[in-house]
Amino acid sequence: MKPRPVVHLVGAGPGDPELLTLKAVRVLRAADVVVHDRLVGDGVLDFVPPSAERICVGKHPGGPRVEQEEINDLLVRLALAGRRVVRLKGGDPFLFGRGGEEVLHLLAHGIRVEVVPGITAAFGAAAELLVPLTHRGLASGVRFVTGHCRDDGELDLDWEGLADPDTTLVVYMGLAHVHEIALRLMAAGLPAGTPALAVERATCPGMRRVRARLGDLAAKVGEAGLRPPVLFVIGRVVELAAAPELAAAPPEEAALSRVLAGVGHAPEV
Amino acid sequence: MKPRPVVHLVGAGPGDPELLTLKAVRVLRAADVVVHDRLVGDGVLDFVPPSAERICVGKHPGGPRVEQEEINDLLVRLALAGRRVVRLKGGDPFLFGRGGEEVLHLLAHGIRVEVVPGITAAFGAAAELLVPLTHRGLASGVRFVTGHCRDDGELDLDWEGLADPDTTLVVYMGLAHVHEIALRLMAAGLPAGTPALAVERATCPGMRRVRARLGDLAAKVGEAGLRPPVLFVIGRVVELAAAPELAAAPPEEAALSRVLAGVGHAPEV
Repeated sequence: MKPRPVVHLVGAGPGDPELLTLKAVRVLRAADVVVHDRLVGDGVLDFVPPSAERICVGKHPGGPRVEQEEINDLLVRLALAGRRVVRLKGGDPFLFGRGGEEVLHLLAHGIRVEVVPGITAAFGAAAELLVPLTHRGLASGVRFVTGHCRDDGELDLDWEGLADPDTTLVVYMGLAHVHEIALRLMAAGLPAGTPALAVERATCPGMRRVRARLGDLAAKVGEAGLRPPVLFVIGRVVELAAAPELAAAPPEEAALSRVLAGVGHAPEV
Repeated sequence: MKPRPVVHLVGAGPGDPELLTLKAVRVLRAADVVVHDRLVGDGVLDFVPPSAERICVGKHPGGPRVEQEEINDLLVRLALAGRRVVRLKGGDPFLFGRGGEEVLHLLAHGIRVEVVPGITAAFGAAAELLVPLTHRGLASGVRFVTGHCRDDGELDLDWEGLADPDTTLVVYMGLAHVHEIALRLMAAGLPAGTPALAVERATCPGMRRVRARLGDLAAKVGEAGLRPPVLFVIGRVVELAAAPELAAAPPEEAALSRVLAGVGHAPEV
């Protein structure tokens, strides 16, 4: 009997290829074909064998969009053709990645699915910037939502529930609506002075961060000209964010390291 | 000038050593001394060089407890002695791990800190059991809380806020209080029929799962005799949990060793 076909749904992590798991690397190296999102970085794709086919199904802003149904059908076709298929998604496949839809579609076609979790951007950014997501006396829990709109253009969030000063709030994909998000949270009772952090391209080369208060978050993000992907971390834990010179220097900031070394803050890279 | 001492705070992931990141493996292999929690599995500790000292500071239930202050001081002493210190914590260091306290203590003593994120148990369990944490029409976000008590024995949770049918609720360390947690969520309006999943030792050998409804979660968990660490996933996404025969087969040891052998030759590592 032929073995049942299997698709591996793999989390690529937040960007830094060193944040891939060992399991993700093992699965990628055995792939015949890798179907990946646009935001999966080149460093991660370097683990794909040269002999394997790469298919990018990411949505370019303003560019042609591959519909989810097409991606689902593509995965089924590739798997039924007997190929070792890896579906590679940014972050973790089961957080805001529509991974569940792909799993259901594959299972419905008799294809087995194995999911390899990934470091989602919130944990990548928290580690890089030394912001604990929970901390005694500051945040007893953490909550992840998306600031992306529904098809009708409405932000569909429970603002009253989100405006909880004891919970760290992480907003994915909220850049386009940062003004409305901040206003609504304040209207629901979250103080304008609540510390907030915007992180562009967390853990990637060229990562940028903006520190603000909820009340001036939209203005400061606008001034800095941040571009997607941007993650917002809102809550008292942001007070703990290390000054840049205390945080670890990523390898690509070698020039900065030399500067810091000159003033006694020599990061070991 | 001597380089400033550095401590690496490393997430060990949920248990399966293959869910370590490449960065965690690199840092562990370079350690002189590893200060680890009790729940960090043997497979993960196998990455510690034989020459390195291992210090377990985990709390055994009922056994002697190493106070957080002692751990903080130990890390400072080891770092100031010029040793390459890894503080290895289960899951991710910045979610319910008191990692923030260790970071603040180290920074206050002039010690640099680098944090390596880890796969937290919620993502490990979700991947293993094919339960997406968010899913269109079922859960627009996810929330992580702890069911552990404050020092005065009270569960200090915002039950009204937690009883949100559109958010997946993940409860860490809630086994001892599962009866009260379920009752309070129902009292706050979450339907008794809400699907729930209890996972013991997510991703580890001997992992066990119990499927229930919120209304009979405590009874079913009691019947099964689950023991800590147990994670609860509560919400409509649990309906999607695959039957065990659809979920993935465990990884072959041989394949794992091939990856580990290859990590040294991996790009970017």
